[in-house]
Amino acid sequence: MGNSYGTLFKISTFGESHGKALGVIIDGCPAGLDINEDFIQQELNRRKPGQSKITTQRKEDDTFEILSGVFEGKSTGTPICIVIHNKDAKSKDYSHIADRYRPSHADYTYDVKYGIRDYRGGGRSSARETAARVAAGAVAKIMLEKQGIKISAYVSQVGDIKCPDYPSLDLSQTENNIVRCPHSETADKMIALIDEIRKSQDTIGGTVTCIIENTPAGLGEPVFDRLHAELGKAMLSINAVKGFEYGSGFEGVKMRGSEHNDAFYKEGDKTKTRTNYSGGIQGGISNGEDIYFNVAFKPVATIMQDQESINAQGETVTVSGKGRHDPCVVPRAVPIVEAMAALVIADFYLINQTAKLRD
Amino acid sequence: MGNSYGTLFKISTFGESHGKALGVIIDGCPAGLDINEDFIQQELNRRKPGQSKITTQRKEDDTFEILSGVFEGKSTGTPICIVIHNKDAKSKDYSHIADRYRPSHADYTYDVKYGIRDYRGGGRSSARETAARVAAGAVAKIMLEKQGIKISAYVSQVGDIKCPDYPSLDLSQTENNIVRCPHSETADKMIALIDEIRKSQDTIGGTVTCIIENTPAGLGEPVFDRLHAELGKAMLSINAVKGFEYGSGFEGVKMRGSEHNDAFYKEGDKTKTRTNYSGGIQGGISNGEDIYFNVAFKPVATIMQDQESINAQGETVTVSGKGRHDPCVVPRAVPIVEAMAALVIADFYLINQTAKLRD
Amino acid sequence: MGNSYGTLFKISTFGESHGKALGVIIDGCPAGLDINEDFIQQELNRRKPGQSKITTQRKEDDTFEILSGVFEGKSTGTPICIVIHNKDAKSKDYSHIADRYRPSHADYTYDVKYGIRDYRGGGRSSARETAARVAAGAVAKIMLEKQGIKISAYVSQVGDIKCPDYPSLDLSQTENNIVRCPHSETADKMIALIDEIRKSQDTIGGTVTCIIENTPAGLGEPVFDRLHAELGKAMLSINAVKGFEYGSGFEGVKMRGSEHNDAFYKEGDKTKTRTNYSGGIQGGISNGEDIYFNVAFKPVATIMQDQESINAQGETVTVSGKGRHDPCVVPRAVPIVEAMAALVIADFYLINQTAKLRD
Amino acid sequence: MGNSYGTLFKISTFGESHGKALGVIIDGCPAGLDINEDFIQQELNRRKPGQSKITTQRKEDDTFEILSGVFEGKSTGTPICIVIHNKDAKSKDYSHIADRYRPSHADYTYDVKYGIRDYRGGGRSSARETAARVAAGAVAKIMLEKQGIKISAYVSQVGDIKCPDYPSLDLSQTENNIVRCPHSETADKMIALIDEIRKSQDTIGGTVTCIIENTPAGLGEPVFDRLHAELGKAMLSINAVKGFEYGSGFEGVKMRGSEHNDAFYKEGDKTKTRTNYSGGIQGGISNGEDIYFNVAFKPVATIMQDQESINAQGETVTVSGKGRHDPCVVPRAVPIVEAMAALVIADFYLINQTAKLRD
Repeated sequence: MGNSYGTLFKISTFGESHGKALGVIIDGCPAGLDINEDFIQQELNRRKPGQSKITTQRKEDDTFEILSGVFEGKSTGTPICIVIHNKDAKSKDYSHIADRYRPSHADYTYDVKYGIRDYRGGGRSSARETAARVAAGAVAKIMLEKQGIKISAYVSQVGDIKCPDYPSLDLSQTENNIVRCPHSETADKMIALIDEIRKSQDTIGGTVTCIIENTPAGLGEPVFDRLHAELGKAMLSINAVKGFEYGSGFEGVKMRGSEHNDAFYKEGDKTKTRTNYSGGIQGGISNGEDIYFNVAFKPVATIMQDQESINAQGETVTVSGKGRHDPCVVPRAVPIVEAMAALVIADFYLINQTAKLRD
Repeated sequence: MGNSYGTLFKISTFGESHGKALGVIIDGCPAGLDINEDFIQQELNRRKPGQSKITTQRKEDDTFEILSGVFEGKSTGTPICIVIHNKDAKSKDYSHIADRYRPSHADYTYDVKYGIRDYRGGGRSSARETAARVAAGAVAKIMLEKQGIKISAYVSQVGDIKCPDYPSLDLSQTENNIVRCPHSETADKMIALIDEIRKSQDTIGGTVTCIIENTPAGLGEPVFDRLHAELGKAMLSINAVKGFEYGSGFEGVKMRGSEHNDAFYKEGDKTKTRTNYSGGIQGGISNGEDIYFNVAFKPVATIMQDQESINAQGETVTVSGKGRHDPCVVPRAVPIVEAMAALVIADFYLINQTAKLRD
Repeated sequence: MGNSYGTLFKISTFGESHGKALGVIIDGCPAGLDINEDFIQQELNRRKPGQSKITTQRKEDDTFEILSGVFEGKSTGTPICIVIHNKDAKSKDYSHIADRYRPSHADYTYDVKYGIRDYRGGGRSSARETAARVAAGAVAKIMLEKQGIKISAYVSQVGDIKCPDYPSLDLSQTENNIVRCPHSETADKMIALIDEIRKSQDTIGGTVTCIIENTPAGLGEPVFDRLHAELGKAMLSINAVKGFEYGSGFEGVKMRGSEHNDAFYKEGDKTKTRTNYSGGIQGGISNGEDIYFNVAFKPVATIMQDQESINAQGETVTVSGKGRHDPCVVPRAVPIVEAMAALVIADFYLINQTAKLRD
Repeated sequence: MGNSYGTLFKISTFGESHGKALGVIIDGCPAGLDINEDFIQQELNRRKPGQSKITTQRKEDDTFEILSGVFEGKSTGTPICIVIHNKDAKSKDYSHIADRYRPSHADYTYDVKYGIRDYRGGGRSSARETAARVAAGAVAKIMLEKQGIKISAYVSQVGDIKCPDYPSLDLSQTENNIVRCPHSETADKMIALIDEIRKSQDTIGGTVTCIIENTPAGLGEPVFDRLHAELGKAMLSINAVKGFEYGSGFEGVKMRGSEHNDAFYKEGDKTKTRTNYSGGIQGGISNGEDIYFNVAFKPVATIMQDQESINAQGETVTVSGKGRHDPCVVPRAVPIVEAMAALVIADFYLINQTAKLRD
């Protein structure tokens, strides 16, 4: 249970951190799309470990192989299976935690639920699983770009260092620094903080913001499958995420209705709103304005310090920090957030095709 | 699409604000439960309009009728259909907005998506739909209480007035005041603020916090259907919700891993954690500690003031505040949050029954 | 579980034979359809009891009420809830079987599965549940007729009396006799046989054939959700059905490939096949030819004779035939078969809208 | 769409006949099962091509690799991905049909639906896809055997040669001959007929019968997801299947209720029926008696003869028989029928675990 996402554009992922391979089946990708393998690789590279000094030093190329669903470079409408083989899987690194429950990891809960777990690198609960999502998200992006829809995420906060709000940012600058914050001054501060945290053998949290531009009005299904409810679920399904807000979010709580309401007006043919506290979504359905939301990531649970815990036998033990880990997860989370957003929008886009029947 | 929720404990709601009736089918409720109609009514009463001076004055008894699935007071395992007939449906009140798009409502998006809408009181997009969820949630609560699981929500913030954190609160006090905040001093301030807002013909937002006690470890399905991801989706599907966070939430972003990690220890037979920044969920699976989360509600969009907007023809119009509306939605949102939480937990509880196979 | 059908055009039924009401929610019906209530009633009348001397004499008008989803005569895209109130529910008739397991009924299996059952008239397991399907099917038919798709079922066999094959029949004659066989000579023989069976206090089986004309090529989803697989499931979900075959069916087993293969040719713009052993479906996808299939119904289990059985305590008892029942179910099954076919085709039609994306 | 099956024990298959690989993800397999790879291989061997003189001579070992979900020989509760690499994929064999529509194949319908197709060996529409199902079915069998449930299929008819009914057969004899009919005299006749058909460069249909023994009472979900409705859908989703019947099936149409009804009696603790026309299922729920059903397979569409057809441009063309194909599909279909039956029963078994809540 729980390893599939979507209704018409549906993905199912598989694989453990230190098993033979990770991968994904995409079922429902429309036929006839140009499946650009370079683009998929490029997206995987944005997530892969070892890409800079502020990420884990595990070495994985994250090269992939398409096993099905693509013929002569085009999607055929049948399931696309993408496999990423694991290479740098040092399983021995993990024997010391085989029966220990690392604090704030999924070791204990997996053991309770399944009575067995692949403890190597967190097994299925490892964030390595998200590589499969990024590959699938790249295919969703190919579909959406053909419709003119653009998805851009960036790091908006690390610890208490915050970036200015998005309307003032140049989103084309995001990939110009290793922390993926489009505001270079803030980026420098973030990098310095992460570096300091890394040296103190600790970790820190952060926030990713995502902007979806050019979504047609009409996407999203009331009442349970509201567009923002699915976006929220998709983001909360990413490892280490603790919160989701869209539009005015938690700050909106403090506002009056008279300032929060977004007045409609016409700009030529287009229906627009003068402000966008709605975050591009009203009644769970996109209204054509920019969709934007924030995703909160906790500090990574693996730290290079000794911690008290228990083992499977209930004895008190010390869990020592070993292995190769990220001091802050958000720089690598940017493509994951984009991928999940792309999957949500692609699914609703397909579902909304049926609305055309009424014409 | 989008009107069903759940996999094994599944609900489907129907009905418009000013149509003949609202209702819900519950499919998957276990057989043999005592379906206490008084309890269901009591839950509906907590949500119903006109219950105090700080809620809308629309008069609806929200009395219900069970059409199926209950025999001699017990659930039979077949679908339970509960219908709530609308009574005080003053449709004439709404003719003035038949072709006008109220700011920050769903009028425009429904029109774009469906090409037609029942404009009376917001039709399907009205929060009145949540009455059906509360009825279904009451049934889920009956199932969960038999398993010892307890769900308690309360108002934790109105505007910028905040209540102390939950471990210090006496949750049995929540229903003792009309704003449903268990901290009476804070409650008084909240009530005064809402009253002031109401008099100024405006509205204000707020936050509801929910605590789930005594959940067994093991609920939740990695990787997409994590327990908190489903809780998030369920909450974000409630009208006016803009954000969701659990455990340390957005504040956790600023913390170091070394302070955020929850150390495991044994208390007799039980596995416990010394702190609970995880919010009772690790790797998407409950660990037996209290689950807690916050839900942010925006200020109600209907205000008693004139606002500029456009109509379906694209002409500039004035939307005047008429009708009967809530100055702040959170007091009535408390039972809705509890209901959605109960539905999520009930569903995962049933799904997790299959885990027993391995014994 | 199990009370919903469909992916995009989805129905959920509820209700027991002698409860307050039966009904259905249709979620996913496109907006803007003219919901002709007279047509829905007409379809229900074709299924309702007491319509002729060869059906049960229970008196139910099967009048319905639409509670939601229709505004000023048109579908709005929100859930349509249709309720059929029970009137002639003589529950006392059933007290004699409260703890007895009627042979070849669902009494025993419901008791094992649920530990409780509404024994009145079979409760949820009664074929009366199909009234809700017929109402929903009528809405699906309205959608399909707008697309030019036509669904016609008829009685093709009663006992061993068989009607000639469909290409030679005038399907407009089906409603001209009480057994619903378009071949009047055969119809007379069928009616005589059913009458004889009824007098001998027994029951007999029969077959319904269904023809779907003018389906566009492209409906159906390989590999598990083939068009005929869903049609099969839908038909097998009708009470008393024991078999399903399409195209050449069980007879095709005896044929050689060289005679069974349907040669393609062009007729103007249209791609056609010279024979149609494929039954209009190839590889699980419609090819534009007529879809046709047969559905086998067993003899009704309720007979007016004494039968040996056991009760819930495991004691040997006699079950006596009382009440009002059909000697042969197929005349009333014709609209049910059509309804389920309409629901399957409507669902695939909506799913296939997404295929247009590739253009 | 359409490449997944099941609710709790769920499979998703992928792959084309002449692509890199075929495979399946199994999501929902309980943790802690011994995943016996020899047994999975043995099941694949029963389906693989080239196994005898009466099957296609394509050479595929159908060896497989488990990429995930199994740790130290045991299932972990996470998705099990099984991949079968294609070896003897002579794609050149198929260039002659790249734009030709083979009669009674899926070439035309795939082209209409998707606008593109992998024409090599039928691509995704090839029965080679069923190898993935057999692998998944083997895992389901492992789960079911632990619960004592046994599934046995055999060839019951080839052309018009029929085997005696199952209660008189020794099902342990099925694998003793190449046609997989447990009645050796009939088997000899079947083999002779298939051999004759093969020599005449033609093909012939057949029937597979399946028996499920020792199913507990209570499996199956009324009203749409009846046990036999799901079995029917599962069987009809297998390539070349034209019909499904269970229990008395199409023959039951001719019977009277008084002979068809299965009288209940007690045998010690067990509730039994004196006859079993119900086929072990009443009201869509298993009653503990043997479940049995028949599946009709049409003659294979690929024949070694010239046939008239059209190409993608609508021109009349000749399709010549080339390649390596089965004269009769049923001997290799036996393990496929068993696999699909195992998947259906495993899924309902897990769903029914929730029924235990009422105790």
